[in-house]
Amino acid sequence: MIFRIATRRDLPAVLALLADEDRVLDPASMPVGEEHERAFAEIESDARNEMLVLTDTGTDTDTEAGGGGTVLGCLQLTYVPGLGQGGQERALVEAVRVRADRRGEGLGAELMRLAAERARGRGCGLIQLTSNKRRTAAHRFYERLGFARSHEGFKLPLERR
Amino acid sequence: MIFRIATRRDLPAVLALLADEDRVLDPASMPVGEEHERAFAEIESDARNEMLVLTDTGTDTDTEAGGGGTVLGCLQLTYVPGLGQGGQERALVEAVRVRADRRGEGLGAELMRLAAERARGRGCGLIQLTSNKRRTAAHRFYERLGFARSHEGFKLPLERR
Repeated sequence: MIFRIATRRDLPAVLALLADEDRVLDPASMPVGEEHERAFAEIESDARNEMLVLTDTGTDTDTEAGGGGTVLGCLQLTYVPGLGQGGQERALVEAVRVRADRRGEGLGAELMRLAAERARGRGCGLIQLTSNKRRTAAHRFYERLGFARSHEGFKLPLERR
Repeated sequence: MIFRIATRRDLPAVLALLADEDRVLDPASMPVGEEHERAFAEIESDARNEMLVLTDTGTDTDTEAGGGGTVLGCLQLTYVPGLGQGGQERALVEAVRVRADRRGEGLGAELMRLAAERARGRGCGLIQLTSNKRRTAAHRFYERLGFARSHEGFKLPLERR
């Protein structure tokens, strides 16, 4: 398996994973909107953001021409600079997904292990994420991986005016 | 009061707030290490990170020459791009602090209100934060401000190898 930075070519597969509610969606059937193109370009061009994919084959190049393979999982890493912890960045994880038909094989654990390794390699002092309180199986999963459920996660939607 | 982007001149006061455990520390007594200088420069130069301060007077300029006033509170905003929520950024809040001798006056609520307003003005769809499970008074504070305590917050320290 390959863990690599997603390219524009992976965008439909990533959108399929994000929309996947226990049912595999065909990337070719995913509408790629202007807002997805823009957000993907923002992630891709930001030195502190990465969309990462786990694929079954392919190359580890991150060029548009490279990549390939079937996308089995994804996650986004954001490297947050800060004054605490000796000035080390912390890594924020969002959008963790594993393809519905490939769950239970340890791919999620592998994805998280690779993400933590990547963050550590960059010099991050901490990796953090939040998980909806209803997702109790996910909580056990993160605890098995060594994460401490030490914080309450608060969210406030911001309405357009 | 003024809510503005912190300048290098505010760094000792921000470090004093971050180290403040219910006791006001004199900014002039704070050692400003090379790691703090570097992390502050990283935040300052990143288009998706802002260290913000609430001061009692001063100007709202964010130039090195401007600023001033006594720093009463601070927080850091990180604008995280993402493929969900119609491609809107989400705002992550870290390092929320109010000076020990000025608590109970509503400054924390004002700080959070200004941060949410700033994030909304930028086009963020959501503002989020985590708070240690032991800080129950802080949890009530965020709930009063309209935040939903909907998530579990997980952290994993990454050791240097």
